[in-house]
Amino acid sequence: MISQQKIKKLTVIGVGLIGGSFARAVRSAGMVDHITGCGRNSDNLKKAIQLGVIDDYSLDIENAVKDADLIFIATPVGSFKSILTQVKSSMKEGAIITDAGSTKFSVIEAAKAVFNKVPPNFIPGHPIAGTENSGVEASFSKLYQDHRVILTPVKETDPTVLEQVSKLWESTGAQVVQMEAKHHDLVLAATSHLPHLLAFSLVNTLTTLDEKQEIFENAAGGFRDFTRIASSDPSMWQDICLANKDALLEHLDHFTDDLQKLRKALECDDSQFLKDVFIRAKQSRDDFSK
Amino acid sequence: MISQQKIKKLTVIGVGLIGGSFARAVRSAGMVDHITGCGRNSDNLKKAIQLGVIDDYSLDIENAVKDADLIFIATPVGSFKSILTQVKSSMKEGAIITDAGSTKFSVIEAAKAVFNKVPPNFIPGHPIAGTENSGVEASFSKLYQDHRVILTPVKETDPTVLEQVSKLWESTGAQVVQMEAKHHDLVLAATSHLPHLLAFSLVNTLTTLDEKQEIFENAAGGFRDFTRIASSDPSMWQDICLANKDALLEHLDHFTDDLQKLRKALECDDSQFLKDVFIRAKQSRDDFSK
Repeated sequence: MISQQKIKKLTVIGVGLIGGSFARAVRSAGMVDHITGCGRNSDNLKKAIQLGVIDDYSLDIENAVKDADLIFIATPVGSFKSILTQVKSSMKEGAIITDAGSTKFSVIEAAKAVFNKVPPNFIPGHPIAGTENSGVEASFSKLYQDHRVILTPVKETDPTVLEQVSKLWESTGAQVVQMEAKHHDLVLAATSHLPHLLAFSLVNTLTTLDEKQEIFENAAGGFRDFTRIASSDPSMWQDICLANKDALLEHLDHFTDDLQKLRKALECDDSQFLKDVFIRAKQSRDDFSK
Repeated sequence: MISQQKIKKLTVIGVGLIGGSFARAVRSAGMVDHITGCGRNSDNLKKAIQLGVIDDYSLDIENAVKDADLIFIATPVGSFKSILTQVKSSMKEGAIITDAGSTKFSVIEAAKAVFNKVPPNFIPGHPIAGTENSGVEASFSKLYQDHRVILTPVKETDPTVLEQVSKLWESTGAQVVQMEAKHHDLVLAATSHLPHLLAFSLVNTLTTLDEKQEIFENAAGGFRDFTRIASSDPSMWQDICLANKDALLEHLDHFTDDLQKLRKALECDDSQFLKDVFIRAKQSRDDFSK
C-alpha cells in the first residue's frame, strides 16, 4: 500500500460499531477496493454485506486475512493475542496491521508475545469515538469525523507505514495524534475508563435499592446523560478495565480520596469547601465545552 | 384563583431557567394575565422583560408579592426562610404560594419556621426538568413538557389549592405526581443529587492531575455526557447538597461501598464480578431508556 494508492483488500476483524464505521468511512473516502469482514457471528456478517459495509466475509481469521493488504482489528482487547496468532500464521508479507483497541499497552504486549517483537508494519491505534450502541447496524461512515485518533507507535515502527495509516484515518475525517502507549492508557483511564466504571457502578447500586422503580421513574435528563455510558457493552468494558487495570486503579483511588474529602465537607456543613470544588469543576467543564 | 379562571397576577421570585420557563409556559397556556418578576439582579430582570417572560419587576420581595394571586418561588433552597419571611409580611390573604425547590423537606421546614405551621395555601413542588444552563436567557416555554412535577402536600394542605396548582402545572405539559416530602428527597438524592456530586467531584479530581490538559483534549462524547451536569450552578448545588444532606450521605455511602467491591474485583482480576455488575447496570439503563 502506498499512501496515494487505493488499498486493494482491507480485512476488518470485528465488524461492529467501530470496525463497521471504519469500513464505511474508508470506502466513502474511496480508499479501498474490496473489504472482507471477519467475526464469529455469521448473522452479523451477513447483515454487514446487506448494509454494504463489507463485500464478503469469512468466519475463519486465517482465511480472511491471507491476501489482505491492510488488516484492521476492532475486537475487545482481551482477544488480541489469539487473533494476532492466527493473523501471523497466514498474513502475506508486507501487509499492514492496525487496530482500534481501547487500551494500547496491553495490545503492544500481545503483539510482542505473538511476534517476539512489535512488527514494523503493526500500528497500534485508538479512535476516540463511539456511541453506547454496538453491532454493525449502529455503524455509520461519519463516526470518526472531527474525532481524534491516537496512534501509539513504538521504536520498531516503520515511519512510512505509520504515515500510511495516519493518512487512512485522516481520510475518515479524523484528526490523528501520536502518543506513547502507557501515556495513552493513563489519559484514557481518566477520561473514559473511570467514567464508565463509575456509571456502571452507580446504576448497579441504584438497582439494588428498594426505591428502584421510583428512582428510574423520576429521573430526568441529567441522569439520562450521566448514565448513558452504562448502556455500553459489558464484555468489552470488562476487557478494557482489566487490560488497563493499573492506570484505572490509580485514577479510581485518586477519585475516591477526593470524594471522601467532599463527603467529609458535606457531613460537617463545610459549604465553602463544597462550593470551591463545584466552582472548579464547573470552570473546567465549561472550558472543555468551548 | 379558581382552576377554570385565569390568574390575575403571578409573581415569580427568581427569574432564571426554572422560574423563567414557568412564566413562559403558563403565559403560553393562557393561564395568567400579568407576571411580575422579582430577584436581586436588575439586569437579568430587564432582560426578562425584553424577552417577554415577565411584564414588570421589583427588586423588593414585599413590593413584588403584595397583590399577587400566585407566588412562585424558584430560588436556591437555602434562601427560602428569608424569602418566605418577606412574602409573609406583605402577601394578600388567600394568595397561593408554590415553589420549585430541589429538596422538599427543607422547604417545608422553612415554611413551618416562618408561618409556625405549613400554610394550607402553600404547595411544595419540584419540577423534574432542567438543563445545565442558568439565567433567564436559558428559559423556554416547553421545558416542562412531558416532564414530571412532584408535589409534596402535607396534612395541612388545602386539597382545592393542591388541585389548582396541579392544573396549572398540567397546563405547561407536565405530568403531576404526589409524594411524601422525605420520600421525594430520598428518591431525588439517588437520581439527581448523587450524580451531580459525582460529576462535580470527578471533574475536580481531573483538574488536579498533571495530564489535565491532555485529558480534556482527548475526551469524547461519553465523557461529555457524563460530566455535563458538572456545568450546573455551584451555589444552587451547594444549597441542594446541604439541604438534603442525610439522604445524600446515605446514598453516597451505599455507592462508595459498592464501588470498593468493584475496585477489589478489578484488583483481583475477578472478571466475572465485573461483568455481572456491568450486565446488571446495562440492563437497568437500557430499560430506563425505553
